[in-house]
Amino acid sequence: MDLDHTAALLANTPAALNALLRDLPDPWICSNEGPATWTAFDVVGHLIHTERTAWMPRAKLILESGDSRPFDPVDRLAQMRESRGKSLAGLLNEFARLRSESLTELRALNLQSEDFARRGLHPALGPVTLAHVLAAWTVHDLTHLHQISRIMAHQCRDAVGPWIKFLGVLHCDGHSAQS
Amino acid sequence: MDLDHTAALLANTPAALNALLRDLPDPWICSNEGPATWTAFDVVGHLIHTERTAWMPRAKLILESGDSRPFDPVDRLAQMRESRGKSLAGLLNEFARLRSESLTELRALNLQSEDFARRGLHPALGPVTLAHVLAAWTVHDLTHLHQISRIMAHQCRDAVGPWIKFLGVLHCDGHSAQS
Repeated sequence: MDLDHTAALLANTPAALNALLRDLPDPWICSNEGPATWTAFDVVGHLIHTERTAWMPRAKLILESGDSRPFDPVDRLAQMRESRGKSLAGLLNEFARLRSESLTELRALNLQSEDFARRGLHPALGPVTLAHVLAAWTVHDLTHLHQISRIMAHQCRDAVGPWIKFLGVLHCDGHSAQS
Repeated sequence: MDLDHTAALLANTPAALNALLRDLPDPWICSNEGPATWTAFDVVGHLIHTERTAWMPRAKLILESGDSRPFDPVDRLAQMRESRGKSLAGLLNEFARLRSESLTELRALNLQSEDFARRGLHPALGPVTLAHVLAAWTVHDLTHLHQISRIMAHQCRDAVGPWIKFLGVLHCDGHSAQS
């Protein structure tokens, strides 16, 4: 567990999403992959919701209470309610602010190597360690970047003609819709 | 074919990669997914090579010569030679500069709606139109963003513990290694 490596990636994600998405025309941002799938706008809302409710709250729960009570489950549809009426620019700003606050909190915990083995209880996955939480936080960012690239590519599915054969993202089956 | 939409995404990709990758510790940048796979560093080199040799050169060939001669094939391993001795920061700068030049050239073509149906000849895929080339250019960016998120996530594969079940990017089978 190298906390500096973890924090470096976590720090970059909001700026990467901002650079990718801000000011793009709406069809890139507001189109999904079909019924019951998410738009890029929805994914940013989900990242905000999990930033508030999942990652640092779970790390702190492990340090305070260990595995004596399970983590609160994530509401995977919260963003459909919480993002309503907001702009993408507003969501990107909100995610950047929350992530920055999370990383300040993470550093303030002054974690020692023995802390990473401390155990918590995931409501669906069972016993996990603090190291698992921190690694899953980074891969959760990457899963949703992977998902956003797929959602956006889907909008050009028919437009690429014969190139569909060579463009791997168009063959992704949506495993990354999970979080 | 909405050229403004296409150009907006193409314009954002270098900044998105820059924000995601610049200044990350080397393990994020220089690790691959196993033998004969690419690192994030390799992918940026590939984007530079295709920017130089594939997208605008093919668009211009269609406008100049139609399908009278096939496009030059892409050398998928060129970056292993061309990136040698360079830094990631240097590659990111080079990609941003080349992309900016490509978009200046694209705008200068002053394409009209009837141009998008003009035909060229791909050496492997056969007949394609200018519209296919432009759409494939954007999805090629997204395929490699998808690939980079997967390569980076792979570095945490064991570290996430039971979360592997929920993190879709870790179930991606590498379809996106193609370009």
